[in-house]
Amino acid sequence: MEKIAVIGAGLIGRAWAMVFARAGHDVKLYDNAPGATDYALRLIADGLRESATFGLISEPFERAATRVTGAASIAEALDGADYVQENTSEREDVKQAVYAELDAAAKPDCILASSTSTIQTSRFAAHLKGKHRCLVAHPVNPPHVVPIVEISPAPFTAPEVVERTIALHTRVGQVPILVRKEIEGFILNRLQAALLLESFRLVDEGFVSTEDLDKTIRDGLGLRWSFMGPFETIDLNAPGGVSDYAARFGEKLCGMMSGTTYRPWDAALVAKVEAERRERMPQDQHAAREAWRDRRLMALIAHKRDLDRETDK
Amino acid sequence: MEKIAVIGAGLIGRAWAMVFARAGHDVKLYDNAPGATDYALRLIADGLRESATFGLISEPFERAATRVTGAASIAEALDGADYVQENTSEREDVKQAVYAELDAAAKPDCILASSTSTIQTSRFAAHLKGKHRCLVAHPVNPPHVVPIVEISPAPFTAPEVVERTIALHTRVGQVPILVRKEIEGFILNRLQAALLLESFRLVDEGFVSTEDLDKTIRDGLGLRWSFMGPFETIDLNAPGGVSDYAARFGEKLCGMMSGTTYRPWDAALVAKVEAERRERMPQDQHAAREAWRDRRLMALIAHKRDLDRETDK
Repeated sequence: MEKIAVIGAGLIGRAWAMVFARAGHDVKLYDNAPGATDYALRLIADGLRESATFGLISEPFERAATRVTGAASIAEALDGADYVQENTSEREDVKQAVYAELDAAAKPDCILASSTSTIQTSRFAAHLKGKHRCLVAHPVNPPHVVPIVEISPAPFTAPEVVERTIALHTRVGQVPILVRKEIEGFILNRLQAALLLESFRLVDEGFVSTEDLDKTIRDGLGLRWSFMGPFETIDLNAPGGVSDYAARFGEKLCGMMSGTTYRPWDAALVAKVEAERRERMPQDQHAAREAWRDRRLMALIAHKRDLDRETDK
Repeated sequence: MEKIAVIGAGLIGRAWAMVFARAGHDVKLYDNAPGATDYALRLIADGLRESATFGLISEPFERAATRVTGAASIAEALDGADYVQENTSEREDVKQAVYAELDAAAKPDCILASSTSTIQTSRFAAHLKGKHRCLVAHPVNPPHVVPIVEISPAPFTAPEVVERTIALHTRVGQVPILVRKEIEGFILNRLQAALLLESFRLVDEGFVSTEDLDKTIRDGLGLRWSFMGPFETIDLNAPGGVSDYAARFGEKLCGMMSGTTYRPWDAALVAKVEAERRERMPQDQHAAREAWRDRRLMALIAHKRDLDRETDK
């Protein structure tokens, strides 16, 4: 069992601690803000308890919770660590400084992985002696519920480090994917951006309300996408598979989008979407709805796991 | 209870017959191919039986099945009908001819709705005396499982017809959305196209495999999208809602997509995606996997319905 260090004890760091601890790994947690680590340990125990109510932990949650302990320094957190999951501020200068510290403190074969959603490995690790052991492991919030992890190495990252990282995330129950070349937004946020840009444009130009657009996804496209990706979806939507689908619909789909241009989301457009959302959900319900979302996600994960057991995945 | 006529007894027509019948409506089914209607009636009974196993019908399925009967002609199918759901070939000339017949045979206040995914109301109904009662009600396949319906009227469609159509679909348990101005692909296929174009491009340019891209959706973005749309998703992803999200991430998301251009899916790209899919799923498993998808969809609908009962939707 690899020893794990989690650096940064915010929402993402805490969720990572739960992921590794519930899979049996010892986790050392460090945050440079005074009191943050102790506070995080309590929230981690709460989070593990909630996961247990959805059947997402296979042992008493207290046992998983005891595997996470606080560390008083980066050196203490990294002492003996095989894998570091870093979750500090999304600032290039901060990451560069943190990685210099991590690289100095970690044992030679320890992997240094960042949760960053915006900063490529090349930009925070190129200056390091141990740059070959650095890469991005980008989760979706919160990773103890949503399993996808984007593994995005730099050209200088050692292939063996990529392999070990993918193997570790697979073993702890996450779903790692490999981003083969560095690209802004990795894969997930580019797909999200593609859908959002078209969504904002359709509302902007008066074709549909925000609520009706949301229904189009949650009561339409999003159903299949929660257990199949877009490629499997179209593969099954024509008897002869993807090439049959492309022959039937490809020209039409590409053609209908070819004249489309996206303008930045200006203040008026953002205000319009915001107003329609507030009509649907008052802002004072925001925190409650976030908690609802996380419960729905956990219930959905449990539902999917049960069905995967019944049928071949 | 409105009397329903379903014209065209293929996959979509049969599913519509189930939607209306299980909600208590009498349905007359007509197809101009010899024997097609009788064959469809047997498949409809099978489909209702399968829905019942997922708890999606609130009465013995046989009772729902008896509400669907065959008609020997369009005139017989439309005799006394309040609402027609048309599912003939996706050809403008065919639709124009069929709608001339439907308009002549239907009683004055009967609504004529098309399942077309590609032909705007203006293009098949503009020549009709009863054009004010024509519109598109575009489902996702299969509509007895996936509830979304895009209601897309022409400028000449009467507002009262739009309202009655939305009310009917809501009552039978579908989720209708209003497409406020005619647009190619309506809303759903434009959103699908936006995601597919970016997906094909990322595979084309070697950033990711088709399987890893599918995972990014089904184990990542698609989870939230199955019970929230993209707007609610970003609304909950920043403490201050949509405008907070736009301030934090809008420029980045718009910026990362601004240089993106899409080329048509040429033969080499389609062959590459097809080959990666065939590696994942041999073509001889296609029909079995389609059946798996429909069972997963039904189980997901049942899961969502149970959770909607527990929490406010």
